[in-house]
Amino acid sequence: MGVFGGIETGGSKWECAIGTGPDDLRATATFPTTTPAETIGQALAFFEREGPVAALGIGSFGPVDATVGSRTWGHITTTPKPGWSHADVGQEIRRRLGVPVAFDTDVNAAAVGEQRWGAAQGLDTFCYVTVGTGIGGGAMVGGHLVHGLVHPEFGHLRVPHDRDADPFDGVCPFHGDCWEGLASGRAIEARWGRRGEELAGTQAVWELEAKYLALGLVSAICILSPQRIVIGGGVMGGPGLLQLVRREVVAILNGYIEHEALGEHIDRYVSAPGLGSRAGAVGAIALAEAALSGLEV
Amino acid sequence: MGVFGGIETGGSKWECAIGTGPDDLRATATFPTTTPAETIGQALAFFEREGPVAALGIGSFGPVDATVGSRTWGHITTTPKPGWSHADVGQEIRRRLGVPVAFDTDVNAAAVGEQRWGAAQGLDTFCYVTVGTGIGGGAMVGGHLVHGLVHPEFGHLRVPHDRDADPFDGVCPFHGDCWEGLASGRAIEARWGRRGEELAGTQAVWELEAKYLALGLVSAICILSPQRIVIGGGVMGGPGLLQLVRREVVAILNGYIEHEALGEHIDRYVSAPGLGSRAGAVGAIALAEAALSGLEV
Repeated sequence: MGVFGGIETGGSKWECAIGTGPDDLRATATFPTTTPAETIGQALAFFEREGPVAALGIGSFGPVDATVGSRTWGHITTTPKPGWSHADVGQEIRRRLGVPVAFDTDVNAAAVGEQRWGAAQGLDTFCYVTVGTGIGGGAMVGGHLVHGLVHPEFGHLRVPHDRDADPFDGVCPFHGDCWEGLASGRAIEARWGRRGEELAGTQAVWELEAKYLALGLVSAICILSPQRIVIGGGVMGGPGLLQLVRREVVAILNGYIEHEALGEHIDRYVSAPGLGSRAGAVGAIALAEAALSGLEV
Repeated sequence: MGVFGGIETGGSKWECAIGTGPDDLRATATFPTTTPAETIGQALAFFEREGPVAALGIGSFGPVDATVGSRTWGHITTTPKPGWSHADVGQEIRRRLGVPVAFDTDVNAAAVGEQRWGAAQGLDTFCYVTVGTGIGGGAMVGGHLVHGLVHPEFGHLRVPHDRDADPFDGVCPFHGDCWEGLASGRAIEARWGRRGEELAGTQAVWELEAKYLALGLVSAICILSPQRIVIGGGVMGGPGLLQLVRREVVAILNGYIEHEALGEHIDRYVSAPGLGSRAGAVGAIALAEAALSGLEV
């Protein structure tokens, strides 16, 4: 089978890895996201130096075109990130590396990784949510990644926003106070004037954050009925935040959906990732392996 | 193959049908939902009189237990409807009719019917939403009905609620101003003091309704990325409402997801059902056929 390559192409950094899974990473590299040409060049240099790999998976920040057969497959589409709008990532890397390439969103790649080796093992219907600079979500239903029209864009759903309690307008350039606009790391920094890391002692920050995060998760629960929600990302390191989110999810649902997962087992239901910060790159390795075996995930 | 039976067990009436599809219904019956014993008895009498059927599908109001193998499979669970909480429907009918029975939510059954014969033909990832007395939603992803932990409960997701513009508290006994609490037929009647049918001339009713409906659909778009949304139910008969909803969906997304379906093709993307008011019973026939062939949908 050989070994596989994985890249998580984040908006601020790229994580590259070579191996067969989280416990067998033969080489890794992390470098900042600059221009497409330079960043893709660094990734290619890494895989040429440390490879060869039998196939490569890419989990990308989005929105992306992940539709196999599309003329712009492998491209990042409407990102506001300067220089990256409509950038070709997947086709360029496939051409220059000369191996099969699987391309999906960073969160769908992480979902595959979490199912294979992390907190979603044995599940076929679940979602993976990351709360960092932005908010993203990926999902599997019946063992298949959700693509549909494009791919999920959890961050841009709307949640209730009580402007009397929280007059903050939100930071999303497209929507203002969508979920990401109210609850991402960027939103925390803009609302409170300091980064989350500096707000550890301010309980009100995390209580408000937990409310917004729970409202979005409740939408995911009502629409997808996931068997579990895996939620990670830098913001989730906030003090006690995961526990507050669980409490709010239960409070908002208010017993309507009768299931122990949404009651006594809520700590397992809303779960931290099993793969930590490498979920994206490791998930991309799982994508690569599936691509080579001709499996569609 | 023989013919199949389908029941849509609604909260106010049951629709029964025998046939092989919407163009081949051999017999139909509609009767009011009274007690479980009486209503189930009427359905059994219909199928015994007009049958036999090779298999039966049931699309039920919910929440339900549709997990094959569960001890309470075929039961309605936490409904506030008097007499129906934890009522056994599927097992009782299966035992007394002696044929294979497929049991799912009314909206999942309708989704199967719309995919087979209606407005979702050729699609594998879409959702079906009904806006009537309540709001419900079913979905397919990759050709499989979404079940997951339980089943989708679209009606209970939360949407932004501007209490200055709309001080109405909502009618959901569990959540107050969840989507169903703000935008169902029951909500319209409680907010405006008259039923939707009597409010045809009041444009403000339908503009507010369209905003709420679009906010919920946007959550479904962000989470499921459906290839199409089929939306029906009595409330959708409101004057110009479907067109207003389409306009609001495009306005709320504000160009973030670049796809013609969410722009110039929005009229096809947010679509009326193809099966009309019999979608549930006809969809249940499709469920029955699939159950008999051992297919899981």
